Amino acid sequence: MSFTLSTTASDSKARAGVLKLAHGEIETPIFMPVGTVGTVKGVHNKELEDEIAAQIILGNTYHLYLRPGTSILEEAGGLHKFMGWNKPILTDSGGYQVYSLAANRKINEEGVKFSSHIDGSKHFFTPEKAMEIQRSIGADIIMAFDECTPYPCEKSYARASMEMTHRWLRRCFDHLEKIPELYGYPQHLFPIVQGSVYPDLRQKSAEFIASQNAVGNAIGGLSVGEPHEDLYEMTDLVCNILPTEKPRYLMGVGTPDNILECIDLGVDMFDCVMPTRNGRNGMLFTSEGIINIKNKKWERDFSPIDPNSPVSTDTFHSKAYLRHLFIARERLGPQLASIHNLGFYLWLVKEARKRIIDGTFKTWKTQMIPKLKNRL
Amino acid sequence: MSFTLSTTASDSKARAGVLKLAHGEIETPIFMPVGTVGTVKGVHNKELEDEIAAQIILGNTYHLYLRPGTSILEEAGGLHKFMGWNKPILTDSGGYQVYSLAANRKINEEGVKFSSHIDGSKHFFTPEKAMEIQRSIGADIIMAFDECTPYPCEKSYARASMEMTHRWLRRCFDHLEKIPELYGYPQHLFPIVQGSVYPDLRQKSAEFIASQNAVGNAIGGLSVGEPHEDLYEMTDLVCNILPTEKPRYLMGVGTPDNILECIDLGVDMFDCVMPTRNGRNGMLFTSEGIINIKNKKWERDFSPIDPNSPVSTDTFHSKAYLRHLFIARERLGPQLASIHNLGFYLWLVKEARKRIIDGTFKTWKTQMIPKLKNRL
Repeated sequence: MSFTLSTTASDSKARAGVLKLAHGEIETPIFMPVGTVGTVKGVHNKELEDEIAAQIILGNTYHLYLRPGTSILEEAGGLHKFMGWNKPILTDSGGYQVYSLAANRKINEEGVKFSSHIDGSKHFFTPEKAMEIQRSIGADIIMAFDECTPYPCEKSYARASMEMTHRWLRRCFDHLEKIPELYGYPQHLFPIVQGSVYPDLRQKSAEFIASQNAVGNAIGGLSVGEPHEDLYEMTDLVCNILPTEKPRYLMGVGTPDNILECIDLGVDMFDCVMPTRNGRNGMLFTSEGIINIKNKKWERDFSPIDPNSPVSTDTFHSKAYLRHLFIARERLGPQLASIHNLGFYLWLVKEARKRIIDGTFKTWKTQMIPKLKNRL
Repeated sequence: MSFTLSTTASDSKARAGVLKLAHGEIETPIFMPVGTVGTVKGVHNKELEDEIAAQIILGNTYHLYLRPGTSILEEAGGLHKFMGWNKPILTDSGGYQVYSLAANRKINEEGVKFSSHIDGSKHFFTPEKAMEIQRSIGADIIMAFDECTPYPCEKSYARASMEMTHRWLRRCFDHLEKIPELYGYPQHLFPIVQGSVYPDLRQKSAEFIASQNAVGNAIGGLSVGEPHEDLYEMTDLVCNILPTEKPRYLMGVGTPDNILECIDLGVDMFDCVMPTRNGRNGMLFTSEGIINIKNKKWERDFSPIDPNSPVSTDTFHSKAYLRHLFIARERLGPQLASIHNLGFYLWLVKEARKRIIDGTFKTWKTQMIPKLKNRL
């Protein structure tokens, strides 16, 4: 893996970079579509590549561990081969879903016991286990096993959890060294900064993570319900501590305006279910604002879904047609909306990168933010 | 419209033809994917054209009348423009759905009163109304308003219904002459033979329909639960009466083996929801037999979904992956299965056409039928 910062904006901490991984190069800042359980919901690989222009996607360790399971993934030769995606993949550690989806969670120093949300079967995740599962999945970038604290969170709990996450990180690194890569290419472990919304905890965590000299670093525990001010304050604080020359990944963020603000603070990588999840419910993000395509006002609007979109289905189909598909509860509605939203997110980060390189990012961002929040 | 029978098999009544319509040419025998309410469920237009190689699709008048409604369709410039499909379209008359979906049906000589299955709103379809709606939709081929009798059906009811369908046909023709085409290209009305499974009624109906000198003719009221022997017997009887030089459309049929058998009897056009509906439930039709992809036996089968398929997703993705998508209830599962099944149906009729032309249809059909029925 290599990370080259090809330029730095003069009036912002925003960066444009190139991240090289075994399965290809990624131009940062980048948004990673979420491919939960071996598929970006409702989207074909070909659409991901040709229409959306995704450069890297995310897989969820918790989901993939439960279905199809590591044995099948190994037999397939890893997730890339199983799902037919030959560009880079990043997997989370499973921690977040264990806390948000699984039942009967019991966390202690050793790890987390939980029951599957699918069949109630009992499982035990430890830092070591999370590394082993991620070896079986075979993503290019893998994540440390952490505890993602909820919001709000008592400071004493946040501190103890953060310290445990730091101890778990050492176990991740140690165990990963002992277990070989399975598919002949390297996997890179990113540690995760925690500390809830407490500046002193965030600082301590960021300093600890920075000292680990990992090839890339992540910021976790945000976008879990806290006010946007806290999200930006914590991200800013942490980005000022994490090493400049390593990629920074802000986990689970966010809305289009969140993404532009956090690019401005020095974040390089993002993922979020919002474009696909909200898309499936008929919410479209566009360069002019947010559209609820189910609204009556689009009933006879025969203009393209998004005339400025690089996605061919956006210029091919009309808003009236897409609305009709949603009203008639046709599968094609969520499909088209997911492609649109992902295409828009990828367009947004590509455009941001262009503006960083030509030195106009800050001006452009200031113009874009009100439009992105606008309800059409 | 023109229909050219380019060849006739020597050992079968199977025919290969070319049907020319305003929106393009169709090579017969042909299968028409069902695009119920302005979309073939879960399938993009591009996939329909490039992967499945559909030449004509079917729209349902009942569904399109209720949603989006004729006013929106007219404002869009017809269904072709509304949904972005520029090849031929055929619409049914709405009759079948009125009988199978709507509530509180009351049929009399004038027409059918019914309540919408969506919101209970009351509507009244007459032969005249069916012509007007189909003008608004703007399909290349439109169907006469008929009553599709259920199975089983008392002979006295079948006779009375058939006679009313014949009277309704005259009203369709008469009214269609009075109302202009809306979009500058011709629409062609196909009348429908009824008569349930009674040979004398079918003969009478086929003779009446043949005497109308329509540009094409349809066989309705079959594939509604009757034994296959009856389906074949009625189809054979009717095909022997309907004019040779006009295309014959067997409505709502059927399984792959049904289709080959009925091609053998002289049918040129087919439609059925089976490839998409069964596909959404995980049933795949292939040249080697039927696959229930949810079965455990495919769990670790990393061979292509269908190695012989013209559809790229069939050779790209494995059975194990498709099974995983179904087990995890991912949208992409039904999407891939629908594309596969439609691609297979289109391959099947194309292959049949090739065999008719080279004179080997009967031999090929005899080899194919047991394979098509085989459960893998």
